[in-house]
Amino acid sequence: MQMTTVYTLEQIKQAVEAMNFSTEIEAGFIAYSNGDVVVPPVGELLFDEPPGETHIKYGYIRGDDYYVVKIASGFYQNVNVGLPSSSGVMLVFSQKTGGLETVLLDEGFLTNVRTAVAGEIVAKYMAPEEVTAIGVFGTGVMARMQVQILESVTDCKRIVVWGRSQSSLDEYKKEMTADGYDVQTTLESSQVTDACNLILMTTPSTTPLIKADQLKPGVHITAIGSDTASKQELDSKILAAADIVVADSISQCEERGEIYQALLTGDLAMDRVIELGSAIQGGGRIRATAEQVTVADLTGVAVQDVQIAKAVSKALGQG
Amino acid sequence: MQMTTVYTLEQIKQAVEAMNFSTEIEAGFIAYSNGDVVVPPVGELLFDEPPGETHIKYGYIRGDDYYVVKIASGFYQNVNVGLPSSSGVMLVFSQKTGGLETVLLDEGFLTNVRTAVAGEIVAKYMAPEEVTAIGVFGTGVMARMQVQILESVTDCKRIVVWGRSQSSLDEYKKEMTADGYDVQTTLESSQVTDACNLILMTTPSTTPLIKADQLKPGVHITAIGSDTASKQELDSKILAAADIVVADSISQCEERGEIYQALLTGDLAMDRVIELGSAIQGGGRIRATAEQVTVADLTGVAVQDVQIAKAVSKALGQG
Repeated sequence: MQMTTVYTLEQIKQAVEAMNFSTEIEAGFIAYSNGDVVVPPVGELLFDEPPGETHIKYGYIRGDDYYVVKIASGFYQNVNVGLPSSSGVMLVFSQKTGGLETVLLDEGFLTNVRTAVAGEIVAKYMAPEEVTAIGVFGTGVMARMQVQILESVTDCKRIVVWGRSQSSLDEYKKEMTADGYDVQTTLESSQVTDACNLILMTTPSTTPLIKADQLKPGVHITAIGSDTASKQELDSKILAAADIVVADSISQCEERGEIYQALLTGDLAMDRVIELGSAIQGGGRIRATAEQVTVADLTGVAVQDVQIAKAVSKALGQG
Repeated sequence: MQMTTVYTLEQIKQAVEAMNFSTEIEAGFIAYSNGDVVVPPVGELLFDEPPGETHIKYGYIRGDDYYVVKIASGFYQNVNVGLPSSSGVMLVFSQKTGGLETVLLDEGFLTNVRTAVAGEIVAKYMAPEEVTAIGVFGTGVMARMQVQILESVTDCKRIVVWGRSQSSLDEYKKEMTADGYDVQTTLESSQVTDACNLILMTTPSTTPLIKADQLKPGVHITAIGSDTASKQELDSKILAAADIVVADSISQCEERGEIYQALLTGDLAMDRVIELGSAIQGGGRIRATAEQVTVADLTGVAVQDVQIAKAVSKALGQG
């Protein structure tokens, strides 16, 4: 008899509030780069009417107690009927018996959290020691979560945020100000790059939002928005000029994201790219000098799902 | 806000008892053969310690309201700790919003049911009009369910069952006798083929259990056990000699099951194989004369999972 426990989004959100996942997800990235993670190709279902897509990501760390399957979908016309475009579920199974132990009805929430945590880990190891201001491209959920999670990494509360529409910028400013941030909004990309030495890219843009000549010495950029072969937020010359380029997954970044774009144009060769899990194993900062320009390209790796689902499942089971 | 309903195995079993799925699953096979079903390649996770395997099957009928993801695993050392080797879950999502509507914690039960229903459909269209006795190879769950589901197709209650061990045969006989069947057990394959004109193969054998010279005119064989490239219950000469060979899925049977074995030895050419959904579209018997020898090879198609999950989900939602 299989004993499965099911948790709702509300229960999951409560548990997550009191938690920090960076330790688990760092361990996940390291296991991944060491070849200890089994991650088969992502399963995909595409729909036409209405347009939608569903991805099935699954895998496990060898020798671990659990394996995880995540099903996440994006149906972008949901906004027309008052529903969020993203939804999803994470399932935690025993690696010893195959039994389904936990169903996390997270509706896509944990995907956002694990993506934010990857940004947190990158900032911990790659950001300048003193952050002058946090630059943010985009005004959506990830533009908020990525900033909020940096509390563990920097005391800096100053944000310069770029967006395409003043109304989204105003809304972002209102919410983040209420959350204790000093927010400056702008429609000019250069205002972000002039003021900030830690920059977060969180848009679904398919054309570069920053050019290489905007960069100042010592800046770090985390590119989160581009997770497909068509999205691109950074001019490829930025990756050419960067002293250090980190990928969350070498194999994925060869096929999607900023690194993929820079490979296409010949601005980057793969032997210049370091994988995150390899780069953080030593425990020290990846940045060698205060003047270095560094870029991290995050496309999302299934081991992040494995680690967060396990951690949340465990926390809820003990609650 | 996503509204997900979760049902336990007990609730699912209660609903299934009052249901017949042959209409839905026939419609599924027909849609599949007409090219109206989207079924991506099966996802797979393999484990070493303990040995285990997990399959993720998913798909949908174009224009339908739902899509289905099934995760099913086999951990064969579970018997050592008093657990069933199979477990699983089926998830029903909206094809309109992507939202997860129903979680069926069926622990693999619905996979058995949909497999039995495929046997029922095959028997309905391919069995001799008058069944003299039902022959069964194997004594496991499928050896019981495949017989029981034939109630809708034939009044015949006589079974000749073959197994490798007298104790399993005795247990099978005891249970099926209690269920109203007249059961003869045997360790000799020929006793089944001599007495029966509807034969069900339900073992995980990797060597043929019947030879071609055992066959009598007018017999129908449904091969259920072989669903991999290594399993085989029928000598390939049987497929060579058969007047009609039906596959549940042409593309799958090219790579696994009895048909695959007969292709390897050159005893069968693919142009002699008819797909089940094409064969039953007309509505009449597939068998042309009472003397024809017919074989159906069932490897299990994801559209069966799609159809049963939808039907059970709907029945439970109305209950």
